[in-house]
Amino acid sequence: MRQVEFWFDFASTYSYPAALRVEEVAYTASVAVVWRPFLLGPIFKAQGWNDSPFNIYPTKGNYMWRDLERVCESLGIPFRKPTVFPRNGLLSARLACLFSEEIWLPEFVRQMFLANFAHDREIADPAVIASALEAVRQPASLVNSARSPEAKAKLRTATERAVLLEIFGAPSFLVGSELFWGNDRL
Amino acid sequence: MRQVEFWFDFASTYSYPAALRVEEVAYTASVAVVWRPFLLGPIFKAQGWNDSPFNIYPTKGNYMWRDLERVCESLGIPFRKPTVFPRNGLLSARLACLFSEEIWLPEFVRQMFLANFAHDREIADPAVIASALEAVRQPASLVNSARSPEAKAKLRTATERAVLLEIFGAPSFLVGSELFWGNDRL
Repeated sequence: MRQVEFWFDFASTYSYPAALRVEEVAYTASVAVVWRPFLLGPIFKAQGWNDSPFNIYPTKGNYMWRDLERVCESLGIPFRKPTVFPRNGLLSARLACLFSEEIWLPEFVRQMFLANFAHDREIADPAVIASALEAVRQPASLVNSARSPEAKAKLRTATERAVLLEIFGAPSFLVGSELFWGNDRL
Repeated sequence: MRQVEFWFDFASTYSYPAALRVEEVAYTASVAVVWRPFLLGPIFKAQGWNDSPFNIYPTKGNYMWRDLERVCESLGIPFRKPTVFPRNGLLSARLACLFSEEIWLPEFVRQMFLANFAHDREIADPAVIASALEAVRQPASLVNSARSPEAKAKLRTATERAVLLEIFGAPSFLVGSELFWGNDRL
């Protein structure tokens, strides 16, 4: 079966609609989804950005928020502009890397994106992560494993691989050696 | 009849496929196209960029060239990577602003984009502009009018309006008060 690697960051706005519908789109095309959580922060830092480019370039940021609202509306996806942006997705990303092969992982990822972009909740808060774990019938205590050396190493490796793949934004989709950037390309 | 303002820059890569198909797409949707040439340069400068962001951020640039190739291939549009990027579209943009209402303008614009992105020709060269004028059965001497104070003022006004509209990239599409950015949004 062909596969697509779905590279996403929990803080990334356009990763939200992509995360919610990537499985459905891939299923229609008979393609398997490989979930690839990573961190955009280090990649942005390497370009000299210490914040989201949507904050550094406010005109682009204003457009993005309006556009994201339209995109979500057209897809029938709930959306509320987060009061904090970008949120810190470090803990969620470590957890998602550690359990990336689990059957419940995709729904956990969707729950975290909904928390950030539909319910305006703080995704760095372990209680919010615990709620998402409970929603997929996993013990809330799993959140502690996100702080393990193994989880940290896995996320670091994933982000290093994103750099090698010349990924510069999220969501990005990798099919074979071809990279596609942006929710539009889904 | 509803209308869409098509904001483009002759040097802009993704403006190329957009310019070639905007009329066909709009025609299918019963929408009239208003052609809006402008310059991205001053807008980029205001953000602190003295070059195309595709040159400043090479990873993004590498992706763009590969992506543009794919986009053109999927649309059946010829493409050859220009040996110079970005080219100087000042003279063409002044001419296009001066004659923006003319019936031959859309085809002139397409000829100039083909010169840059399919034939790798220097669009700042008056001879190249003259060829495009001849292709639309206009006298080559029209190129001289691009240097008139009126043409300069029109392009300046257009670019100032782009800033007021919070346009930050090209192509951009304006429908009523709603702005859409990117060839993907066509």
